[in-house]
This record gives sequence, C-alpha cells and structure tokens, in this order.
Amino acid sequence: MLSKNEISEFLETEFPQTKCQVESASKGQAIVRHPVGVDELRPGGTVSGPVMMSVADVAMYVAILASLGLVKETVTTSLTINFLRKPKGDRDILADCKILKLGKTLAVAEVSLFSEGDADAVAHVVGTYAIPRENTINK
Amino acid sequence: MLSKNEISEFLETEFPQTKCQVESASKGQAIVRHPVGVDELRPGGTVSGPVMMSVADVAMYVAILASLGLVKETVTTSLTINFLRKPKGDRDILADCKILKLGKTLAVAEVSLFSEGDADAVAHVVGTYAIPRENTINK
Amino acid sequence: MLSKNEISEFLETEFPQTKCQVESASKGQAIVRHPVGVDELRPGGTVSGPVMMSVADVAMYVAILASLGLVKETVTTSLTINFLRKPKGDRDILADCKILKLGKTLAVAEVSLFSEGDADAVAHVVGTYAIPRENTINK
Amino acid sequence: MLSKNEISEFLETEFPQTKCQVESASKGQAIVRHPVGVDELRPGGTVSGPVMMSVADVAMYVAILASLGLVKETVTTSLTINFLRKPKGDRDILADCKILKLGKTLAVAEVSLFSEGDADAVAHVVGTYAIPRENTINK
Repeated sequence: MLSKNEISEFLETEFPQTKCQVESASKGQAIVRHPVGVDELRPGGTVSGPVMMSVADVAMYVAILASLGLVKETVTTSLTINFLRKPKGDRDILADCKILKLGKTLAVAEVSLFSEGDADAVAHVVGTYAIPRENTINK
Repeated sequence: MLSKNEISEFLETEFPQTKCQVESASKGQAIVRHPVGVDELRPGGTVSGPVMMSVADVAMYVAILASLGLVKETVTTSLTINFLRKPKGDRDILADCKILKLGKTLAVAEVSLFSEGDADAVAHVVGTYAIPRENTINK
Repeated sequence: MLSKNEISEFLETEFPQTKCQVESASKGQAIVRHPVGVDELRPGGTVSGPVMMSVADVAMYVAILASLGLVKETVTTSLTINFLRKPKGDRDILADCKILKLGKTLAVAEVSLFSEGDADAVAHVVGTYAIPRENTINK
Repeated sequence: MLSKNEISEFLETEFPQTKCQVESASKGQAIVRHPVGVDELRPGGTVSGPVMMSVADVAMYVAILASLGLVKETVTTSLTINFLRKPKGDRDILADCKILKLGKTLAVAEVSLFSEGDADAVAHVVGTYAIPRENTINK
C-alpha cells in the first residue's frame, strides 16, 4: 500500500493549487485537512461552497489513490454536494471519505465535511470517477 | 428589473473572490463569463473542476438576483455537476443559466458551461437555493 | 416518539402502493424492508432502478416522520441515486436511512440499500425534503 | 438509424413493466409518453415520484438506443431528479430527453418531465449510463 507521504507528493504534482494535507489514507477511505484561508471566506465569516467541493474532490481522489495506486488519469465525472450547516471560518475543514464502489471503470465515493471540533457535518458529497482501462489491468 | 451594473456591484460585495463578469441577466436567466487564470489550471492545461462549480454557482446566483431582486441571504443548498468534456485552458468559461423553478422558499436552476467558441458544453450543473421567507414577501 | 405501528398505519394512507414494512424508526434514522415482486424484476433477475428509488424514498419519509411526527405535507424535492451493484432478485431490499440535516424547512437524508444478507450496498441515495412551515412550529 | 417501432419492440423486452410509448427518437434525443394509472397516484391526485423517475429513465434509455443502436447491457449508473411542480393526475406525463454527452463508456442525459398541455416542467432529471466496451467498438 502507498504511504501517506507518497500520496502527498503525488497530490502536489497533480493538484498544485490544493492546500489539503493527507491525515489518513488506506484501502477504501481517506481523511484530508484543509486550513481555511481568509481569501476563502464569504461575508459573515463562513467558508465558500466551491472551497468545500474542492476539499471533497481531493479527499475522494486520495481515497482512490490509496485503493488503486498512483492512477494518473482518474477524472471526476460527477459530484453532488448538499450543504447542511454553515462551516466556521476560523476552523480547518476535515473531509472524511469512504469509497462506496470501486469498479473496473467507475468509482463512487461519499464524503462528510466537518468544521474541526464539531460532530455535525457541514456538507455531504457523493462523487463518481472514471478510471482509465489501462490503469486498472495491473491493479 | 435590476440593471447588469447593479447586479455586478452587488456580486462584488457578496462574492469578493469571484472574477466572473455578468454578460446578461433577466428574469429567469443569466450568462456569466469567467476568464481562466493560470492558477486555475490542472496538469494538461485543463480547468479545474472546483473552478467550474464556482462559475456555475455565480451564474445561478445572478439569475436569482435578476429574478427576485437583491436577496442577500439566498444560500446554495445543493449542487450537482456532471463533467462532460475537458474545458480548454486558454479560453474563457461561459456559464448559461436557466431557472427551472422559482418557488417561495426554494429555487432550482440549471447551468451549461462552455469553453468560449465551442458548441458542446464542458459541464452541466443543477443547483438548488433556499430563499429566506422575509425576503420573498415583498417580491 | 411515534411507535412503529403508528408510522406503518400513516404510511399505508399516504403511500397506499408501497409494500415496504417498517423495520425500525427513531429520531434521525429508519430501516425499511421491501419484498421484491416478480413484476419488479428486470431481465437477468435484477431489481429495477425505480423500485430501489421508491424504497429509498419511503425510508427517508419514515425517518422524517419518526423525527418530526406525522407531518402530512412533507414532499421530496430532490433525490440522487448511485447504483453500485446488481441487487439480487430473490432477496428483500433493505433500506437503511440516516438523516443528515433536519432544518426548519428542509431535511436532507442518505440511504444505503442492500440485498438482504449482503454487506455491500447495491445503491446509495441522497434526498431532500421540504417541510411545510406550519407543521414545524410545534415540533 | 433505428425506427420508432424497432425501439418500441426492444423496450417491451427489456422493460416489460413500462407503459411508456415512444413519441419520437433520433440521434441525441427522445420523447416518451406515459399514461398515468390510478395506481400511480398519491393522495391529492398527484403522480408519485418513483413513477416520474421511471419515465425519465425510459426516456434516457430510448435516446441512447436511438443514438447507439440496440445496446443491451447499458445500465443506469446514477440519476438525479429535482421535483419542480405537482404533476396532474389526469394527464399523461411527457418526458423530453436530450443527450449531453455520448462517450465511449459513459453517456449523460437530461430530461424535462411535463404534464401534457403545460409549459412548465414538473421535474428535471440528469442521468448517467455505463455503456459496455464491447458494444461500443462497432458503433
């Protein structure tokens, strides 16, 4: 299995913009942390929606990497987010991802997003990913 | 009806981070333009998914403003995006939004996203918005 | 809290077509069982998609009833289903629902659907429900 | 291109339960009609949600058949429905489907559902379909 460090290095190359840190990653799951920047806040001190979608997308990508290996060409094909509560602007966002299906050409995952320290999720995400054929033969 | 300028000014206050420009906005529809920055590209020269979600979110917000007036507290409650084709990194993103339902407490809208100059959409979005009760009484 | 019997009776009035039986229901969760009929199979012996959506919808409705009381006017506003594996035609479908948010006007819930006896879900659903204002005042 | 009759016959084999009639079908689009039965009504005389999902699913399937040929193994992988208005219990449901993407392994389509005679849609659906590799080689 890939180490957290191997995944983190790969992530920096593939998602150079992301500030997400890999907290844990193993077959079928991942947790990533996103330190919220002042440029990511909406009026009222809450975190903008696209920031949350972006963190969920990274969490799902990390969980797939941890499950399949360093698959370069995996692409998000769909993402559904439900916003549940206002995230806190002064807390890190934690994204807890669980893979629901890891098929030959399609992966489906869900993510619960939290403001660190709170028990209730601020958003829930379901995403689907296309896995290129060639990369799955020798998995 | 609100002018394009009134909406643009309101947008700058509510979404200070957005680079979107309002191309057109009237009851039930809006078109916004997003100039893609180099910091928004993924390896391979394509536009990152969260950037597209963010542009769609702004287009839906603008269409709701153009339909209801300057409603401050409208919040995105859900967003579903399907990625259809790779957007081009050297073209503006255009988001064409049509409101599907404008209820008393809920609005539903769809958006087709394009790389400028192409006929086929790069992504399709459906979003739902909660409209605060007090703001809809005197609409 | 409502008893399983009270919810079952209410369900028969509101969803006269459903064959779902309430297995458990309490604040924030519900499990319902659907015996699959031969008229609900697709060629190949698998359960049709709309049957699964229908069972998930009932599970979410039951979980909301168990949480809010016998709210008559609650309506589904959106439903997203991801089909994960082929359900077995000769097994009951079990729907395990967890409420993600119970707001004043909006509830969000997720459901995992199983062929009885299998550990892996056959489908995953997220649904949103509009709760009428008048019914939530005295909850 | 397949004729309406060829598609209708195929549909009867693959979806023996459906009452949908193919109104039109050509590359990239389809319209199907569903006569609402009394057993499909909810209290208040409106059409149940799962019936609408089912009609949308058939419309998308017909549009894919009309575009790709009689592909047997195409399966729905996800479906998102937004309910917009109450459908009328005494009118046929018309489903107007447009394919958004027809890829090698994945198709994405949207459907607007109407009560016949009304201009405003009662529901909007986006669905994704997996197309088996072997069936797409000789398309």
